[in-house]
Amino acid sequence: MNVRSDRIARVQARMREEGLVAIVVMNHDDYRYLFGTDRSQPRALIPFEGPPELIAFTGEEPELRASLASGEVRVFGSVGGQIHDIVGRLREIVGSAARPPADGRPKVGMQLWFETPAFLVDLFRKVNPEVELVSSDPVMDPLRAVKDPGELACLAEAQRIAGVGMDRVRELLRPGVTAHEVATETIHAMMQAGAERTSTPIYVNFGIETCMLHGRLSPKPLERGELALVDLTPQVEGYCANLARTFVLGEPDERQRELLATYRELIDAVRPAMRPGATVADLDEVATGVRERHGLAEFGVYGIGHGIGLRFEEPPASTIIPAHRNLPLREGMTVTIGHPVLAIPGFGGVRFEDVYRVTPRGAQALSPYPIEPELAG
Amino acid sequence: MNVRSDRIARVQARMREEGLVAIVVMNHDDYRYLFGTDRSQPRALIPFEGPPELIAFTGEEPELRASLASGEVRVFGSVGGQIHDIVGRLREIVGSAARPPADGRPKVGMQLWFETPAFLVDLFRKVNPEVELVSSDPVMDPLRAVKDPGELACLAEAQRIAGVGMDRVRELLRPGVTAHEVATETIHAMMQAGAERTSTPIYVNFGIETCMLHGRLSPKPLERGELALVDLTPQVEGYCANLARTFVLGEPDERQRELLATYRELIDAVRPAMRPGATVADLDEVATGVRERHGLAEFGVYGIGHGIGLRFEEPPASTIIPAHRNLPLREGMTVTIGHPVLAIPGFGGVRFEDVYRVTPRGAQALSPYPIEPELAG
Repeated sequence: MNVRSDRIARVQARMREEGLVAIVVMNHDDYRYLFGTDRSQPRALIPFEGPPELIAFTGEEPELRASLASGEVRVFGSVGGQIHDIVGRLREIVGSAARPPADGRPKVGMQLWFETPAFLVDLFRKVNPEVELVSSDPVMDPLRAVKDPGELACLAEAQRIAGVGMDRVRELLRPGVTAHEVATETIHAMMQAGAERTSTPIYVNFGIETCMLHGRLSPKPLERGELALVDLTPQVEGYCANLARTFVLGEPDERQRELLATYRELIDAVRPAMRPGATVADLDEVATGVRERHGLAEFGVYGIGHGIGLRFEEPPASTIIPAHRNLPLREGMTVTIGHPVLAIPGFGGVRFEDVYRVTPRGAQALSPYPIEPELAG
Repeated sequence: MNVRSDRIARVQARMREEGLVAIVVMNHDDYRYLFGTDRSQPRALIPFEGPPELIAFTGEEPELRASLASGEVRVFGSVGGQIHDIVGRLREIVGSAARPPADGRPKVGMQLWFETPAFLVDLFRKVNPEVELVSSDPVMDPLRAVKDPGELACLAEAQRIAGVGMDRVRELLRPGVTAHEVATETIHAMMQAGAERTSTPIYVNFGIETCMLHGRLSPKPLERGELALVDLTPQVEGYCANLARTFVLGEPDERQRELLATYRELIDAVRPAMRPGATVADLDEVATGVRERHGLAEFGVYGIGHGIGLRFEEPPASTIIPAHRNLPLREGMTVTIGHPVLAIPGFGGVRFEDVYRVTPRGAQALSPYPIEPELAG
């Protein structure tokens, strides 16, 4: 464990600006960002001032203390009833605030993202009516959006490992191979190369299943002439990669060739436009222009990229939070291009996705990987 | 896809008993239970009568229709804005109900479990104030708790594959091996044996980290004489396995031996008590008696088992929902024994977990795997 006191201080400064008395951390990404490590059930309290507090079960306390290489934390344990413990501490923290909040109940922040289940939030609100539970996004998002050099190194390494996986995919895609075989060997190759795990299941889709917006493992073996779409998401120290490629076994037919060429052109057009100040809406407009020129205007491709870091989808996550369509990009943000599939319903879809850094000269690929869709087969 | 009209009919009958006009399915386990397949974003509406409705994005419609081997479904597509689509359909369904609900707003069910993020539920409530969102557990839990022969076969196969993984673990646990190496090769072995994926990350903990309530991948390589605790969770057709074993490299010391022997005795005592009508509270009492006899009363081990099926933790899930401590077991339920770690803080912990079927003669292991903690090393 390597407590990031610098980051915690910045979080607390922003909490005071936003009027939050505390943030309850119950997700892996914020926990990793603040404490430099992960655990199965990440639980911490960040008060508006003073040291952060880790929450552990009784038996875990010595192990947690032993792992504290630096930084100050308080550990309090309980077997079960953690929510009640947290409520008790929140009351103390609220009581210790010199000035009561200007209006209404004291605000407590929590990440209300995919990792935070609805029943826990409902329970928290029920047992803790004295405080108002709000999203911690306004505090955390601005701090986490721009990546520091250490974070960029992890993201680039994760993306490099995704490339190792994609090399393996290219070897495996032969007539008769199953999506499950591809997934089995590719996960193995990526973990051997240093991936901790993947941040999503691996998607390997063949034929008509390439139309799926995200994907799964196709049930039918690959046939010659079919599209194959593979999306790899290895993680390194919690940082997520995202590398998607589409392949054709053998000679692509005319429609496949058109889809593949359009997507390449679309990426080439979007890359220089991904500069500080641009929004996903701006980039989608660029992509739409390319589709129109190719007579593919009717096949919608919106939300061309998403932020990526310790969370697989970070701001701008416009396909989840529509308001993020208008979030201006900042230099040093890491954003994908190639998120949505360009699909002709009933026929198939293509995409190529990579992770880029936003720079004044446009999108700079973190670990470039070639786009070579044609495979011998 | 294999739409399970029989199960859908039973769900609808229970919905009418419970006064629900619809259930919104947004989780993998209910989707698999009702439609016999999975997809990346499972979305369906079950009205209180009539055919279920699948929700897909526009481009996915032909692929989804093509996969419909049997059963009747309606597909309606949209790019984004699915919540709004669902709201519109819910209004129609509510309007079509002959009798308005007895009191208050019409009730719509949703699984409010770990897969359902708080922000989606908050959004749903906001855009849909005409209906009351309630947990679908009272409808789904009683139907899903008792497994049919097909489900038992999947669970037994998943548990068999976990055994294949544990065989590999036994080969890998040598001085100097890292938890990451063990995870890399064990996941590969389990996927090669037919696992789709694992339902949780794999936990491989060494030394003091075995005290962790769940676990992670220990950072330090394994040393001779240390405890090693491995928890494997492969899935087959969505059905989850759970196999945990604790090992010692070389001769166990006295405290290790005592912990290991106590846990074995605890399982042997709990197994015959896991009969229809018993509760987890009853089983915990049995386990407490064993700990007391061994002078380990102070080291709490509660929630000795949990239900398991298409969800990794199903009712009784007493460590998540305290009320489940008093849920009577039924014949044919599948429940683990060995969930909590018996840990001496600062020293280490042990557990052995397997999946059992509840029978009038006690717990019957689905795919028995030996408990042999001593490894040459």
